[in-house]
Amino acid sequence: MTATPTRSAPPLDFDPADPVALTQALVRCPSVTPAEAGVLALLEQVLAAEGYAVHRPVFSEPGMPDVENLYARIGSEGPVFVVAGHVDVVPVGDEAAWTRAPFAATIENGVLYGRGACDMKGGLAAMVSAAIRYRRENPEAPGSIAFLVAGDEEGPAVNGTVKLLKWAHERGERFDHCLLGEPTNPAAMSDMIKIGRRGSLTGELTVNGTQGHVGYPHLADNPIRGMVRLLAALDATPLDAGTTHFDPSNLEVTTLDVGNPATNVIPAQARAVFNIRFNDRWTPETLAAEIERRLREAAGNTVRYEIRFRPTNSVAFLTEPGPFVAMVADAVEAETGKRPALSTTGGTSDARFIKSYCPVVEYGVVGKTMHQVDECVAVSDLLALERITHRLLARYFAAQHRA
Amino acid sequence: MTATPTRSAPPLDFDPADPVALTQALVRCPSVTPAEAGVLALLEQVLAAEGYAVHRPVFSEPGMPDVENLYARIGSEGPVFVVAGHVDVVPVGDEAAWTRAPFAATIENGVLYGRGACDMKGGLAAMVSAAIRYRRENPEAPGSIAFLVAGDEEGPAVNGTVKLLKWAHERGERFDHCLLGEPTNPAAMSDMIKIGRRGSLTGELTVNGTQGHVGYPHLADNPIRGMVRLLAALDATPLDAGTTHFDPSNLEVTTLDVGNPATNVIPAQARAVFNIRFNDRWTPETLAAEIERRLREAAGNTVRYEIRFRPTNSVAFLTEPGPFVAMVADAVEAETGKRPALSTTGGTSDARFIKSYCPVVEYGVVGKTMHQVDECVAVSDLLALERITHRLLARYFAAQHRA
Ligand SMILES: [Zn+2]
Ligand SMILES: [Zn+2]
Repeated sequence: MTATPTRSAPPLDFDPADPVALTQALVRCPSVTPAEAGVLALLEQVLAAEGYAVHRPVFSEPGMPDVENLYARIGSEGPVFVVAGHVDVVPVGDEAAWTRAPFAATIENGVLYGRGACDMKGGLAAMVSAAIRYRRENPEAPGSIAFLVAGDEEGPAVNGTVKLLKWAHERGERFDHCLLGEPTNPAAMSDMIKIGRRGSLTGELTVNGTQGHVGYPHLADNPIRGMVRLLAALDATPLDAGTTHFDPSNLEVTTLDVGNPATNVIPAQARAVFNIRFNDRWTPETLAAEIERRLREAAGNTVRYEIRFRPTNSVAFLTEPGPFVAMVADAVEAETGKRPALSTTGGTSDARFIKSYCPVVEYGVVGKTMHQVDECVAVSDLLALERITHRLLARYFAAQHRA
Repeated sequence: MTATPTRSAPPLDFDPADPVALTQALVRCPSVTPAEAGVLALLEQVLAAEGYAVHRPVFSEPGMPDVENLYARIGSEGPVFVVAGHVDVVPVGDEAAWTRAPFAATIENGVLYGRGACDMKGGLAAMVSAAIRYRRENPEAPGSIAFLVAGDEEGPAVNGTVKLLKWAHERGERFDHCLLGEPTNPAAMSDMIKIGRRGSLTGELTVNGTQGHVGYPHLADNPIRGMVRLLAALDATPLDAGTTHFDPSNLEVTTLDVGNPATNVIPAQARAVFNIRFNDRWTPETLAAEIERRLREAAGNTVRYEIRFRPTNSVAFLTEPGPFVAMVADAVEAETGKRPALSTTGGTSDARFIKSYCPVVEYGVVGKTMHQVDECVAVSDLLALERITHRLLARYFAAQHRA
């Protein structure tokens, strides 16, 4: 781990308090994981100019590309309000299918197009702009604002947020609350705050049979028959009925493969992979034990199987609704006129790592086009997110004042 | 269709009444389907020298290689006893794994090794030798002996037995009984006569779902869930309990494939192939209707599926036990000391075509090594099969004498 020194750069040709201009500048850096592509250098320049102490730790792991990250803080006292995010983006995909150049950040009819526009350079930019405006307006504000920006959220997520949190903690950094700017809204800015995430557990199930000729089934043992029985058993009873803040845990078989081209041959083996998104009723360990119990029961003495769970760092977590969650919801409601739902749905995010350091809530722009061709964000949503974040910061630090 | 003229050849250097020498000579022709490789020319030479009228019809089909076949008959009156068989063999496979050259017909410790030794040049040779010995001993025997020898049983079976039967029928040939020399015995020459075969029906089942992210299962529809439900339903109730001479019909799913590498993606489609070996309780049509009924019932309104049955010419058939079957069993018992079982088990054979022309029974050598590396036949089994066939011919034509 090394920290690269601050580099000199030409002056900015836009005001970083403008979230639209800042989003454009970030999108124009083609930072497909794990490439930095100038995006962190730009953020460093922006934040350093506003008085932030900026660090650029680079993390390594044998057999993986090095990943650049950024940590910046303004203020020396608590409370520390952390904005978390990532600047890496998924690949362009079928570039020919894009109707605008994916890194041009073209604005048309009030929509800003580009890879990362919604996931999540737009969200991060709006929050940086809001923090800049807030501190420019309140140079004597109490507490600290910090930015925790990872470079590999879309990749293996090994040399990003996990190590950045550990690195910061070892330097003595302590966080009080975190806002993670992932795109949480399905359709409109008033839709959804995420206060938790389900965990994810992947299992590989292999059923072993005995190969043979279909004409002599008594000399063979068809593993597909056993596989069907085991999968039917896994699907027969729900894992749970959901918890206060979570949907029921859910198992999906994602693939099932035999690969036998001969219609007169009973195959020797069948392999399935399943993924479970689980709520706070379970840990990966208790859940694996329950799956193993169900398989054992369904298999009896007749189905020969192997079950292997892939290692996971993805547990379910919840930031219990309380003053901080309410403060975020209030800010959204004040700017959009509608109170957002408190949700724990969807995939996983870096919040699963942050939650070990401080309460974390996720809120960002509309995620409808994330990872897709013609990814985009509405300019009005960027402006709304800037206002919401500004309102939240003002309220957060005002509350500290009063305390 | 053309018949090649009889070609001149050097005289044989062995007596074709010797089943071991004749098997060796046949095995040494590498007649992997559809190659003739000299094997039919040799048979023609052998049979013509014994007074048979020999024909070598070649059958064609667009897009397929031409296939040479042989039809030979001695005698001009009824009854006509037909010996059926094939001279083509399956490929050598992993030649390096053979411990003897696959077309050398090496004999070691009383075992003759080579591709086709048991399936079924050995069986055909023993029957040719027996017929030669019988006619040499009984030049005035009543009735006729015919040989119906196909060149593509191991291939598509389109330009072989099916067309040869039709060709012979169109020439006015009428058959009374047929002995098909496939290797029917699992372990010993006294094991098994086959008096029927199950039919074979192959179905392709596709379940269509809706692709999506495992984190948002309510937006997707996992086709694997539907596939498991349909396959469980097909397996829940036996198709039948067997019939007088047949085992229960049996369905095996031979492959099931999704091919989805992403553990966070619910796939769009799952495809399975199954094969049913069915008894005389069913025709392919009634069986397909029953499968369709079961699928419809299991799918309800929730599983979207497509079922397609591959065309089949494979119906179940039975040669009812009676005087002819008893005569074959008597001959086996007389030479081996043990009465063979009358079986309808195993895969399909050309008997499914022959049964439309005359009653057909299958009996041959031990099939344990068929299609395998180091395919082989015991010399003692070749000699036993020659004696059994000779005894059967003598009894068959003696019965005609008495009639
Ligand atoms: Zn993201
Ligand atoms: Zn065969």
